[in-house]
Amino acid sequence: MSKKVAVILSGCGVFDGAEIHESVLTALRLDQQGAQVTFFAPDIPQAHVINHLTGDEMPEQRNVLIESGRITRGKTLDVRELQAKDFDALILPGGFGVAKNLSNFASKGADCEVEENTLKAILQFKEAKKPIGLMCISPALSAKIFGTGVTCTIGSDAGTAGAIEAMGGIHQNCSVDSIVVDEGNCLVTTPAYMLAQSIRQAATGINALVDKVLEMA
Amino acid sequence: MSKKVAVILSGCGVFDGAEIHESVLTALRLDQQGAQVTFFAPDIPQAHVINHLTGDEMPEQRNVLIESGRITRGKTLDVRELQAKDFDALILPGGFGVAKNLSNFASKGADCEVEENTLKAILQFKEAKKPIGLMCISPALSAKIFGTGVTCTIGSDAGTAGAIEAMGGIHQNCSVDSIVVDEGNCLVTTPAYMLAQSIRQAATGINALVDKVLEMA
Repeated sequence: MSKKVAVILSGCGVFDGAEIHESVLTALRLDQQGAQVTFFAPDIPQAHVINHLTGDEMPEQRNVLIESGRITRGKTLDVRELQAKDFDALILPGGFGVAKNLSNFASKGADCEVEENTLKAILQFKEAKKPIGLMCISPALSAKIFGTGVTCTIGSDAGTAGAIEAMGGIHQNCSVDSIVVDEGNCLVTTPAYMLAQSIRQAATGINALVDKVLEMA
Repeated sequence: MSKKVAVILSGCGVFDGAEIHESVLTALRLDQQGAQVTFFAPDIPQAHVINHLTGDEMPEQRNVLIESGRITRGKTLDVRELQAKDFDALILPGGFGVAKNLSNFASKGADCEVEENTLKAILQFKEAKKPIGLMCISPALSAKIFGTGVTCTIGSDAGTAGAIEAMGGIHQNCSVDSIVVDEGNCLVTTPAYMLAQSIRQAATGINALVDKVLEMA
Protein backbone atom coordinates (compact mmCIF):
# COMPACT_ATOMS: atom_id res chain seq x y z
CA MET A 1 0.00 0.00 0.00
CA SER A 2 1.48 3.33 -1.02
CA LYS A 3 1.44 6.05 1.58
CA LYS A 4 -0.87 9.02 1.06
CA VAL A 5 0.51 12.48 1.67
CA ALA A 6 -1.34 15.80 1.67
CA VAL A 7 0.60 18.90 0.61
CA ILE A 8 -0.72 22.40 1.38
CA LEU A 9 0.34 25.14 -1.05
CA SER A 10 0.09 28.91 -0.59
CA GLY A 11 -0.04 30.23 -4.15
CA CYS A 12 2.50 30.07 -7.00
CA GLY A 13 5.78 31.96 -6.70
CA VAL A 14 8.30 32.50 -3.93
CA PHE A 15 7.54 36.18 -3.23
CA ASP A 16 3.75 36.04 -2.88
CA GLY A 17 2.93 32.33 -2.85
CA ALA A 18 4.39 28.84 -2.56
CA GLU A 19 8.06 28.43 -3.45
CA ILE A 20 7.82 26.60 -6.79
CA HIS A 21 11.08 24.61 -6.61
CA GLU A 22 10.29 23.38 -3.10
CA SER A 23 6.77 22.37 -4.13
CA VAL A 24 7.97 20.50 -7.23
CA LEU A 25 10.91 18.84 -5.45
CA THR A 26 8.51 17.64 -2.75
CA ALA A 27 6.17 16.17 -5.36
CA LEU A 28 9.10 14.55 -7.18
CA ARG A 29 10.55 12.86 -4.09
CA LEU A 30 7.14 11.67 -2.91
CA ASP A 31 6.45 10.14 -6.33
CA GLN A 32 9.92 8.59 -6.55
CA GLN A 33 9.36 6.98 -3.14
CA GLY A 34 6.03 5.54 -4.24
CA ALA A 35 3.80 7.85 -2.19
CA GLN A 36 0.57 9.34 -3.50
CA VAL A 37 0.29 13.12 -3.19
CA THR A 38 -2.83 15.29 -3.06
CA PHE A 39 -2.52 19.08 -3.11
CA PHE A 40 -4.62 21.55 -1.14
CA ALA A 41 -4.73 25.33 -0.69
CA PRO A 42 -7.05 27.81 0.99
CA ASP A 43 -9.67 29.51 -1.19
CA ILE A 44 -8.71 33.06 -0.18
CA PRO A 45 -7.30 36.16 -1.90
CA GLN A 46 -3.51 36.47 -1.94
CA ALA A 47 -2.17 39.14 0.43
CA HIS A 48 -0.80 40.80 -2.71
CA VAL A 49 0.73 40.08 -6.12
CA ILE A 50 4.47 40.64 -6.56
CA ASN A 51 6.29 41.18 -9.86
CA HIS A 52 9.00 38.58 -9.28
CA LEU A 53 11.49 40.38 -11.53
CA THR A 54 11.34 43.77 -9.78
CA GLY A 55 9.93 42.94 -6.36
CA ASP A 56 7.23 45.59 -6.85
CA GLU A 57 3.61 45.04 -5.90
CA MET A 58 1.29 44.77 -8.91
CA PRO A 59 -2.23 46.29 -9.00
CA GLU A 60 -3.90 42.89 -9.26
CA GLN A 61 -5.83 40.44 -7.13
CA ARG A 62 -5.22 36.69 -7.34
CA ASN A 63 -6.65 33.70 -5.46
CA VAL A 64 -4.39 31.34 -3.51
CA LEU A 65 -6.27 28.17 -4.49
CA ILE A 66 -6.50 29.06 -8.18
CA GLU A 67 -2.83 30.08 -8.48
CA SER A 68 -1.70 26.95 -6.60
CA GLY A 69 -3.34 24.99 -9.41
CA ARG A 70 -0.51 26.11 -11.71
CA ILE A 71 2.03 24.09 -9.74
CA THR A 72 -0.21 21.01 -9.68
CA ARG A 73 -1.29 20.99 -13.35
CA GLY A 74 -4.84 21.79 -12.28
CA LYS A 75 -5.20 19.40 -9.36
CA THR A 76 -5.52 21.38 -6.12
CA LEU A 77 -8.40 21.01 -3.67
CA ASP A 78 -9.85 23.50 -1.20
CA VAL A 79 -8.10 22.98 2.15
CA ARG A 80 -11.57 22.76 3.78
CA GLU A 81 -11.87 19.35 2.09
CA LEU A 82 -8.69 18.05 3.74
CA GLN A 83 -9.42 15.27 6.25
CA ALA A 84 -6.42 13.83 8.10
CA LYS A 85 -8.13 10.43 8.25
CA ASP A 86 -7.62 10.09 4.49
CA PHE A 87 -3.84 10.65 4.68
CA ASP A 88 -0.71 9.30 6.36
CA ALA A 89 1.20 12.57 6.54
CA LEU A 90 1.18 16.30 5.74
CA ILE A 91 3.88 18.49 4.17
CA LEU A 92 4.04 22.28 3.71
CA PRO A 93 6.58 23.73 1.25
CA GLY A 94 7.74 27.29 1.93
CA GLY A 95 7.65 30.58 0.07
CA PHE A 96 6.42 33.95 1.34
CA GLY A 97 2.88 32.68 0.73
CA VAL A 98 3.18 30.77 4.01
CA ALA A 99 3.92 34.03 5.84
CA LYS A 100 1.47 36.18 3.87
CA ASN A 101 -1.42 33.90 2.84
CA LEU A 102 -1.40 30.86 5.15
CA SER A 103 -0.62 33.20 8.06
CA ASN A 104 0.29 36.83 8.72
CA PHE A 105 3.77 35.99 10.06
CA ALA A 106 5.37 38.35 7.52
CA SER A 107 3.63 41.37 9.06
CA LYS A 108 2.92 40.24 12.64
CA GLY A 109 5.94 38.08 13.48
CA ALA A 110 5.53 36.32 16.83
CA ASP A 111 1.99 37.73 17.13
CA CYS A 112 0.88 36.02 13.93
CA GLU A 113 -2.24 33.98 13.34
CA VAL A 114 -2.62 31.02 11.00
CA GLU A 115 -5.38 31.14 8.36
CA GLU A 116 -8.43 29.53 9.93
CA ASN A 117 -9.13 26.63 7.56
CA THR A 118 -5.46 25.87 7.04
CA LEU A 119 -4.93 25.67 10.80
CA LYS A 120 -7.98 23.40 11.21
CA ALA A 121 -6.54 21.02 8.64
CA ILE A 122 -3.05 21.00 10.16
CA LEU A 123 -4.40 20.45 13.69
CA GLN A 124 -6.18 17.28 12.54
CA PHE A 125 -2.79 15.76 11.71
CA LYS A 126 -1.34 16.89 15.02
CA GLU A 127 -4.23 15.36 16.94
CA ALA A 128 -3.96 12.10 15.00
CA LYS A 129 -0.18 12.02 15.71
CA LYS A 130 0.45 11.79 11.97
CA PRO A 131 3.80 13.18 10.83
CA ILE A 132 4.03 16.76 9.59
CA GLY A 133 6.90 18.09 7.47
CA LEU A 134 7.51 21.85 7.36
CA MET A 135 10.21 23.44 5.21
CA CYS A 136 11.76 26.86 4.58
CA ILE A 137 9.67 29.52 6.40
CA SER A 138 6.82 27.10 7.26
CA PRO A 139 8.43 26.01 10.56
CA ALA A 140 7.79 29.57 11.81
CA LEU A 141 4.23 28.31 12.38
CA SER A 142 5.38 25.37 14.54
CA ALA A 143 4.53 26.92 17.92
CA LYS A 144 1.12 28.03 16.62
CA ILE A 145 0.43 24.38 15.77
CA PHE A 146 2.15 22.45 18.58
CA GLY A 147 2.44 25.03 21.35
CA THR A 148 5.33 25.70 23.72
CA GLY A 149 8.37 23.43 23.58
CA VAL A 150 8.17 22.31 19.97
CA THR A 151 11.60 21.93 18.34
CA CYS A 152 12.17 23.06 14.75
CA THR A 153 14.53 24.79 12.34
CA ILE A 154 14.40 27.50 9.71
CA GLY A 155 18.16 27.24 9.19
CA SER A 156 20.09 29.97 10.98
CA ASP A 157 18.32 33.29 10.39
CA ALA A 158 18.49 35.02 13.79
CA GLY A 159 15.40 37.18 13.34
CA THR A 160 13.11 34.33 12.35
CA ALA A 161 14.64 32.03 14.99
CA GLY A 162 14.01 34.73 17.59
CA ALA A 163 10.35 35.00 16.57
CA ILE A 164 9.99 31.22 16.89
CA GLU A 165 11.48 31.35 20.39
CA ALA A 166 9.19 34.30 21.28
CA MET A 167 6.22 32.09 20.38
CA GLY A 168 7.50 29.36 22.70
CA GLY A 169 9.27 27.18 20.16
CA ILE A 170 12.81 25.87 20.43
CA HIS A 171 14.93 26.70 17.41
CA GLN A 172 17.88 24.52 16.37
CA ASN A 173 20.33 25.70 13.74
CA CYS A 174 20.49 23.25 10.83
CA SER A 175 22.44 22.96 7.57
CA VAL A 176 20.69 23.03 4.20
CA ASP A 177 21.15 19.30 3.61
CA SER A 178 19.83 18.21 6.99
CA ILE A 179 16.62 18.01 9.03
CA VAL A 180 15.49 18.58 12.61
CA VAL A 181 13.14 15.96 14.03
CA ASP A 182 10.85 16.53 17.01
CA GLU A 183 9.90 12.90 17.67
CA GLY A 184 7.31 13.70 20.34
CA ASN A 185 5.40 16.00 18.03
CA CYS A 186 6.00 13.92 14.88
CA LEU A 187 7.40 17.08 13.28
CA VAL A 188 10.20 17.21 10.67
CA THR A 189 11.67 20.55 9.52
CA THR A 190 14.39 21.64 7.07
CA PRO A 191 15.71 25.05 5.92
CA ALA A 192 15.37 24.56 2.12
CA TYR A 193 15.58 28.02 0.49
CA MET A 194 16.04 29.77 3.84
CA LEU A 195 19.64 28.61 3.25
CA ALA A 196 19.90 26.97 -0.17
CA GLN A 197 22.06 28.75 -2.74
CA SER A 198 20.91 26.48 -5.55
CA ILE A 199 18.11 24.08 -6.46
CA ARG A 200 20.48 21.11 -5.99
CA GLN A 201 21.15 22.21 -2.42
CA ALA A 202 17.44 22.71 -1.73
CA ALA A 203 16.77 19.19 -2.99
CA THR A 204 19.16 17.59 -0.47
CA GLY A 205 17.27 18.79 2.60
CA ILE A 206 13.83 18.38 1.02
CA ASN A 207 14.61 14.77 0.07
CA ALA A 208 15.76 14.10 3.64
CA LEU A 209 12.54 15.63 4.99
CA VAL A 210 10.28 13.66 2.66
CA ASP A 211 12.10 10.40 3.42
CA LYS A 212 11.83 10.96 7.19
CA VAL A 213 8.16 11.91 7.00
CA LEU A 214 7.42 8.75 5.01
CA GLU A 215 9.45 6.65 7.47
CA MET A 216 7.40 8.04 10.37
CA ALA A 217 4.07 7.59 8.54
CA MET B 1 34.80 24.88 -16.58
CA SER B 2 31.10 24.37 -16.05
CA LYS B 3 28.91 24.43 -19.12
CA LYS B 4 26.52 27.34 -19.60
CA VAL B 5 22.98 26.60 -20.67
CA ALA B 6 20.25 29.05 -21.65
CA VAL B 7 16.64 28.04 -20.94
CA ILE B 8 13.74 29.85 -22.62
CA LEU B 9 10.46 29.88 -20.66
CA SER B 10 6.99 30.79 -21.91
CA GLY B 11 5.17 31.90 -18.75
CA CYS B 12 4.28 30.03 -15.58
CA GLY B 13 1.73 27.21 -15.71
CA VAL B 14 1.06 24.34 -18.09
CA PHE B 15 -2.18 25.66 -19.62
CA ASP B 16 -1.08 29.19 -20.55
CA GLY B 17 2.69 29.22 -19.96
CA ALA B 18 5.71 27.07 -19.29
CA GLU B 19 5.10 23.64 -17.75
CA ILE B 20 6.36 24.18 -14.20
CA HIS B 21 7.51 20.62 -13.44
CA GLU B 22 9.45 20.41 -16.70
CA SER B 23 11.09 23.78 -16.07
CA VAL B 24 12.09 22.89 -12.50
CA LEU B 25 13.27 19.37 -13.40
CA THR B 26 15.43 20.88 -16.16
CA ALA B 27 16.98 23.36 -13.71
CA LEU B 28 17.54 20.59 -11.15
CA ARG B 29 19.30 18.23 -13.55
CA LEU B 30 21.45 21.01 -15.00
CA ASP B 31 22.53 22.06 -11.50
CA GLN B 32 23.14 18.47 -10.41
CA GLN B 33 25.37 17.98 -13.48
CA GLY B 34 27.35 21.11 -12.65
CA ALA B 35 26.02 23.29 -15.47
CA GLN B 36 25.14 26.95 -15.03
CA VAL B 37 21.64 27.92 -16.13
CA THR B 38 20.33 31.33 -17.22
CA PHE B 39 16.61 31.82 -17.89
CA PHE B 40 15.07 33.93 -20.64
CA ALA B 41 11.54 34.70 -21.86
CA PRO B 42 9.99 37.09 -24.38
CA ASP B 43 8.63 40.38 -23.04
CA ILE B 44 5.16 39.97 -24.58
CA PRO B 45 1.59 39.60 -23.31
CA GLN B 46 0.38 36.04 -22.72
CA ALA B 47 -2.11 34.81 -25.34
CA HIS B 48 -4.54 34.48 -22.42
CA VAL B 49 -4.76 33.57 -18.74
CA ILE B 50 -6.26 30.19 -17.82
CA ASN B 51 -7.74 29.24 -14.45
CA HIS B 52 -5.80 25.99 -14.04
CA LEU B 53 -8.48 24.42 -11.83
CA THR B 54 -11.40 24.91 -14.22
CA GLY B 55 -9.72 25.39 -17.61
CA ASP B 56 -11.70 28.61 -18.09
CA GLU B 57 -10.15 31.78 -19.49
CA MET B 58 -9.83 34.56 -16.90
CA PRO B 59 -10.47 38.26 -17.69
CA GLU B 60 -6.84 39.21 -17.02
CA GLN B 61 -3.71 40.13 -18.90
CA ARG B 62 -0.29 38.84 -17.83
CA ASN B 63 3.21 39.22 -19.26
CA VAL B 64 5.25 36.17 -20.31
CA LEU B 65 8.57 37.53 -19.02
CA ILE B 66 7.17 38.68 -15.66
CA GLU B 67 5.28 35.43 -14.98
CA SER B 68 8.31 33.34 -16.00
CA GLY B 69 10.12 35.07 -13.13
CA ARG B 70 8.00 33.06 -10.69
CA ILE B 71 9.65 29.81 -11.77
CA THR B 72 13.15 31.33 -11.57
CA ARG B 73 12.84 33.11 -8.20
CA GLY B 74 13.09 36.45 -9.95
CA LYS B 75 15.93 35.73 -12.36
CA THR B 76 14.63 35.76 -15.95
CA LEU B 77 16.07 37.96 -18.71
CA ASP B 78 14.42 39.35 -21.83
CA VAL B 79 15.05 36.89 -24.67
CA ARG B 80 16.34 39.83 -26.76
CA GLU B 81 19.42 39.77 -24.48
CA LEU B 82 20.17 36.12 -25.30
CA GLN B 83 23.43 35.74 -27.26
CA ALA B 84 24.39 32.21 -28.27
CA LYS B 85 28.08 33.11 -28.00
CA ASP B 86 27.67 33.32 -24.21
CA PHE B 87 26.26 29.78 -23.90
CA ASP B 88 27.08 26.17 -24.76
CA ALA B 89 23.51 24.96 -25.28
CA LEU B 90 19.83 25.90 -25.26
CA ILE B 91 16.82 24.08 -23.76
CA LEU B 92 13.09 24.78 -24.06
CA PRO B 93 10.70 23.16 -21.58
CA GLY B 94 7.13 22.63 -22.76
CA GLY B 95 3.70 23.76 -21.66
CA PHE B 96 0.97 25.35 -23.77
CA GLY B 97 2.93 28.61 -23.50
CA VAL B 98 5.22 27.26 -26.23
CA ALA B 99 2.22 26.83 -28.52
CA LYS B 100 0.41 30.02 -27.47
CA ASN B 101 3.11 32.54 -26.49
CA LEU B 102 6.40 31.44 -28.10
CA SER B 103 4.43 30.58 -31.24
CA ASN B 104 0.86 30.30 -32.47
CA PHE B 105 1.05 26.53 -33.03
CA ALA B 106 -2.00 25.98 -30.79
CA SER B 107 -4.22 27.96 -33.18
CA LYS B 108 -2.39 27.68 -36.53
CA GLY B 109 -0.91 24.17 -36.38
CA ALA B 110 1.43 23.53 -39.33
CA ASP B 111 0.96 27.14 -40.49
CA CYS B 112 2.35 28.51 -37.22
CA GLU B 113 4.95 31.23 -36.76
CA VAL B 114 7.48 31.44 -33.95
CA GLU B 115 7.59 34.65 -31.87
CA GLU B 116 10.11 36.94 -33.55
CA ASN B 117 12.68 37.50 -30.80
CA THR B 118 12.46 33.92 -29.54
CA LEU B 119 13.13 32.62 -33.06
CA LYS B 120 16.09 34.99 -33.49
CA ALA B 121 17.62 33.66 -30.27
CA ILE B 122 17.07 30.01 -31.17
CA LEU B 123 18.47 30.46 -34.69
CA GLN B 124 21.75 31.76 -33.23
CA PHE B 125 22.25 28.37 -31.55
CA LYS B 126 21.36 26.53 -34.75
CA GLU B 127 23.83 28.60 -36.77
CA ALA B 128 26.58 28.08 -34.19
CA LYS B 129 25.89 24.31 -34.23
CA LYS B 130 25.34 24.40 -30.48
CA PRO B 131 23.01 21.72 -29.11
CA ILE B 132 19.34 22.49 -28.62
CA GLY B 133 17.03 20.44 -26.38
CA LEU B 134 13.27 20.64 -26.94
CA MET B 135 10.76 18.81 -24.74
CA CYS B 136 7.01 18.15 -24.58
CA ILE B 137 5.25 20.31 -27.22
CA SER B 138 8.40 22.39 -28.02
CA PRO B 139 9.59 19.94 -30.72
CA ALA B 140 6.54 21.02 -32.74
CA LEU B 141 8.67 24.06 -33.63
CA SER B 142 11.58 21.91 -34.94
CA ALA B 143 10.84 22.37 -38.64
CA LYS B 144 10.36 26.12 -38.17
CA ILE B 145 13.90 26.21 -36.71
CA PHE B 146 15.79 23.60 -38.76
CA GLY B 147 13.70 23.28 -41.92
CA THR B 148 12.77 20.16 -43.85
CA GLY B 149 14.19 16.81 -42.77
CA VAL B 150 14.74 17.52 -39.09
CA THR B 151 14.02 14.50 -36.89
CA CYS B 152 12.23 14.90 -33.56
CA THR B 153 9.60 13.48 -31.20
CA ILE B 154 6.61 14.70 -29.24
CA GLY B 155 5.88 11.14 -28.06
CA SER B 156 3.11 9.49 -30.03
CA ASP B 157 0.25 11.98 -30.44
CA ALA B 158 -0.90 11.47 -34.02
CA GLY B 159 -2.31 14.96 -34.53
CA THR B 160 0.82 16.77 -33.37
CA ALA B 161 3.08 14.31 -35.20
CA GLY B 162 1.06 14.94 -38.36
CA ALA B 163 1.50 18.70 -38.02
CA ILE B 164 5.26 18.21 -37.63
CA GLU B 165 5.34 16.11 -40.79
CA ALA B 166 3.21 18.71 -42.61
CA MET B 167 5.89 21.29 -41.77
CA GLY B 168 8.58 19.04 -43.26
CA GLY B 169 9.84 17.42 -40.07
CA ILE B 170 10.30 13.70 -39.51
CA HIS B 171 8.50 12.44 -36.40
CA GLN B 172 9.73 9.40 -34.48
CA ASN B 173 7.58 7.85 -31.77
CA CYS B 174 9.43 7.78 -28.45
CA SER B 175 8.72 6.52 -24.94
CA VAL B 176 8.52 8.90 -21.97
CA ASP B 177 11.89 7.82 -20.58
CA SER B 178 13.78 8.18 -23.83
CA ILE B 179 15.07 10.79 -26.29
CA VAL B 180 15.36 11.26 -30.03
CA VAL B 181 18.68 12.69 -31.26
CA ASP B 182 19.16 14.39 -34.63
CA GLU B 183 22.95 14.43 -34.67
CA GLY B 184 23.25 16.53 -37.82
CA ASN B 185 21.10 19.29 -36.39
CA CYS B 186 22.45 18.95 -32.82
CA LEU B 187 18.82 18.56 -31.70
CA VAL B 188 17.62 16.44 -28.75
CA THR B 189 13.89 15.95 -28.08
CA THR B 190 11.80 14.06 -25.50
CA PRO B 191 8.04 13.72 -24.87
CA ALA B 192 7.97 14.73 -21.16
CA TYR B 193 4.34 15.55 -20.24
CA MET B 194 3.10 14.78 -23.76
CA LEU B 195 3.26 11.21 -22.37
CA ALA B 196 4.21 11.34 -18.68
CA GLN B 197 1.58 10.16 -16.23
CA SER B 198 3.57 11.38 -13.23
CA ILE B 199 6.39 13.75 -12.33
CA ARG B 200 8.73 10.79 -11.78
CA GLN B 201 8.12 9.63 -15.34
CA ALA B 202 8.61 13.14 -16.71
CA ALA B 203 11.95 13.34 -14.90
CA THR B 204 13.32 10.21 -16.61
CA GLY B 205 13.12 11.64 -20.12
CA ILE B 206 14.07 15.17 -19.08
CA ASN B 207 17.18 13.88 -17.29
CA ALA B 208 18.14 11.92 -20.42
CA LEU B 209 17.66 15.03 -22.57
CA VAL B 210 19.70 17.28 -20.27
CA ASP B 211 22.51 14.71 -20.07
CA LYS B 212 22.65 14.31 -23.85
CA VAL B 213 22.58 18.07 -24.47
CA LEU B 214 25.47 18.53 -22.00
CA GLU B 215 27.39 15.67 -23.62
CA MET B 216 27.02 17.34 -27.05
CA ALA B 217 27.93 20.80 -25.72
